[in-house]
Amino acid sequence: MSVGQPYVRVAEIEIDPARCDAYCAALSQEIKTSIRVEPGVLALYAVSDKHDPARIVVFEIYADVAAYAAHLETPHFDAYKAATADMVTSLKLTETVPIALGAK
Amino acid sequence: MSVGQPYVRVAEIEIDPARCDAYCAALSQEIKTSIRVEPGVLALYAVSDKHDPARIVVFEIYADVAAYAAHLETPHFDAYKAATADMVTSLKLTETVPIALGAK
Repeated sequence: MSVGQPYVRVAEIEIDPARCDAYCAALSQEIKTSIRVEPGVLALYAVSDKHDPARIVVFEIYADVAAYAAHLETPHFDAYKAATADMVTSLKLTETVPIALGAK
Repeated sequence: MSVGQPYVRVAEIEIDPARCDAYCAALSQEIKTSIRVEPGVLALYAVSDKHDPARIVVFEIYADVAAYAAHLETPHFDAYKAATADMVTSLKLTETVPIALGAK
């Protein structure tokens, strides 16, 4: 992936530990669809803490801020939010400035 | 970038706010060299909090855990650690399990 100066955000999500499987399934589906149908969604990398699977980080790379705004209005994002609303116990969203985005 | 199930880590770094420029220069150099010379370093994405540039996140994708171990032994990583030792005030390293790594 070659990137110039995209718009990058970091989401830190805590979920109900009893709902990890269902949450991860919903998040994976949302990511798969976003990458497939949204040209401005360059990358969505979701990981969980190896020692606490209820703590999740999503590293989000959009072509620009407009692509992020458009992403929030998609039916697949709405579906994800609705499906996971009662699983998420904490959500911290950080807007960032890229320092270096190095990738093969 | 096509990735299977690589080894992913998240570094949360706080630095001396007076040293942001020097720190970012050292980190950028380290990332550029790692991507260029280490086959197992798939991506190193470094960003700072838009509202607090002294708070930095590095999202790190390695081919496998051996590639990460090898990265720690490189001269460019050593040089980065030496150059920034007195700039870093807090370092939190998280080992993760990928949920979904979606990218164009």
